Amino acid sequence: MLQTIEWAGDEVRLLDQTLLPGEQVYLRITDEKQMWGAIRRLSVRGAPAIGVAAALGVYLGVRGRQYDDLAAFDQRLGEVCDYLATSRPTAVNLFWALDRMKRIAAETRKQGSRTEEQMAVKIVQRLLAEALSMIDEDIDVCRRIGEHGLELLQSIRLAASASDKPMGILTHCNAGALAAVKYGTALAPIYVGAERGVHFHVYADETRPLLQGARITAFELTRAGISTTVLCDNMAATLMRDGKIQAVIVGTDRVAANGDVANKIGTLTVAILADHYRIPFFVAAPTSSIDVSLATGAQIPIEQRDASEVSNSFGKRTAPAEAAIYNPAFDVTPAELITAMITENGVVKRGESLADHLERNSERRSHQ
Amino acid sequence: MLQTIEWAGDEVRLLDQTLLPGEQVYLRITDEKQMWGAIRRLSVRGAPAIGVAAALGVYLGVRGRQYDDLAAFDQRLGEVCDYLATSRPTAVNLFWALDRMKRIAAETRKQGSRTEEQMAVKIVQRLLAEALSMIDEDIDVCRRIGEHGLELLQSIRLAASASDKPMGILTHCNAGALAAVKYGTALAPIYVGAERGVHFHVYADETRPLLQGARITAFELTRAGISTTVLCDNMAATLMRDGKIQAVIVGTDRVAANGDVANKIGTLTVAILADHYRIPFFVAAPTSSIDVSLATGAQIPIEQRDASEVSNSFGKRTAPAEAAIYNPAFDVTPAELITAMITENGVVKRGESLADHLERNSERRSHQ
Repeated sequence: MLQTIEWAGDEVRLLDQTLLPGEQVYLRITDEKQMWGAIRRLSVRGAPAIGVAAALGVYLGVRGRQYDDLAAFDQRLGEVCDYLATSRPTAVNLFWALDRMKRIAAETRKQGSRTEEQMAVKIVQRLLAEALSMIDEDIDVCRRIGEHGLELLQSIRLAASASDKPMGILTHCNAGALAAVKYGTALAPIYVGAERGVHFHVYADETRPLLQGARITAFELTRAGISTTVLCDNMAATLMRDGKIQAVIVGTDRVAANGDVANKIGTLTVAILADHYRIPFFVAAPTSSIDVSLATGAQIPIEQRDASEVSNSFGKRTAPAEAAIYNPAFDVTPAELITAMITENGVVKRGESLADHLERNSERRSHQ
Repeated sequence: MLQTIEWAGDEVRLLDQTLLPGEQVYLRITDEKQMWGAIRRLSVRGAPAIGVAAALGVYLGVRGRQYDDLAAFDQRLGEVCDYLATSRPTAVNLFWALDRMKRIAAETRKQGSRTEEQMAVKIVQRLLAEALSMIDEDIDVCRRIGEHGLELLQSIRLAASASDKPMGILTHCNAGALAAVKYGTALAPIYVGAERGVHFHVYADETRPLLQGARITAFELTRAGISTTVLCDNMAATLMRDGKIQAVIVGTDRVAANGDVANKIGTLTVAILADHYRIPFFVAAPTSSIDVSLATGAQIPIEQRDASEVSNSFGKRTAPAEAAIYNPAFDVTPAELITAMITENGVVKRGESLADHLERNSERRSHQ
């Protein structure tokens, strides 16, 4: 498997996903400005990966400087976090990671140290350790999503007439290994299945305008030996009608408290199609993507991206200059269209409370 | 307005639609092989335009030859028609036009002539006249669809709260002036409206893989001064949810007797979305596109096109070679998802019989 994001001792190595599948180029990121740019132009993308990248970006932004006192350090940390927060507005994992880094800084300070200067050095070290632990955590969280998701998919197969053919799974955009550190979210059940000899056939929506489905999902799946068919976003309905798709599974950039899900533009369409053809529609959502501060999906900020992504596809003008362009990066799928959500802690079915799910698991953790 | 297809006295002039919107190049077509190629590679496309192009192709294929007897002529006519029939399988207008040319040949023969050689010359002349009359008829048919369609759209506007803003109309692919000789089918109500001071805002799905919506629909509409927004095919759901779209109108390549409609891939998705959001979904269908020989849409042959249209978008590889590609050119929208069909003779609402509509109008014609 490819490594999306890696700490190389002194710099971050990122696979430049804008060049896939044609070229595999690794970017060397040494400061927070380069990280901001990499997130902004989607060299690194996918909610979990953005979170980890942002945490490493915080470290890159505060390291290697002289802080005479903690006020100077706090100012710099605040600047770096505020700056990285402007890279992309929709994925909550970005803000979750920045908050977590700020919390670690605050906690470390409570432990005391001889001088403020020494304390600043200690906090910087702690921030690196925290960012690195987020890499390991992400792998663990995705792996657990994969296990719960695989169980869920197998229960559907059992419920349907037992066919020998691999189940057909439709996914949209890329919520795979390259959207996280490893495994990914939506594709984690496919990878865990492959490890255990459970095979799926994945249908990958190409996902206009930037074709993350064709370029990235199909690339990582076929590299892992998983049979994959690429289709244009407007072709899934026919496959559903013809019984080729037994389940849909997608990732998410942010989940509101009521279970509404923001994800790559086009997800809402897939959910409506799945509802029409009575095909289960699942969202793989690490709990870090659940934003209980927002009551509904209507409050999730939706990034509007540049018109040229649609009008100048692949370096060529494909729409006349006189036409307006509509190019939101995400849409919001209402909770009622989602059969179940899969977190690292299990499955939340339609109608069940996300808040209860989060609370139950935080209690369980605190009892451990 | 641009002329899609034109008889230039000795050859056919076709606007090469594969090069829009960047370049406006006219092809000079002098024989049936060039016409076959132009239809096949979509230099000329759109069901009505394909019909006219095929009819002219028949003339180009039989002209300028010596026929010693009618058997020789019949053989050649049969060859040319069979050959042109293989250019594209889905649009029934192609077969309708070829049948019409063969019928004209048979009818002309009944009128008698001194020698078989002279008769062949006379038939060839009649075939040119027939193909040219199809150009005029197409303009007339589209104009009438425009009038009926405009009336229908205005009735929706009246039924809804009377807003001063132009109605938002979503269309998919191109069923405009460039899919016919002039006016087009789905876009005819927009053009007729513009002539009468009734303004619409058109949302044009870009229509992957070949982007006829972005390249052709947006091009011809903005050239005609009609306000147009281009979106990727996966973005329409959000516009519908936000109340930006008051009606959907599309063209068709073939309608079965029960009202199922084959049209550009992605039409079925749009119809399901419109149904979900309770937005009227209209199909502009010249009666020449209705194929009563097919009971349902399941019998309509669907053209599968080359994988490279999806995997090598715009001259660049966008999906890995290891992935399979799904690339049907059309899909079938079931009659129950279609609010009404608009022919040159009026409106056929959901639940009404297409056969009755055709019969009523053929009776009306025979009484005139």
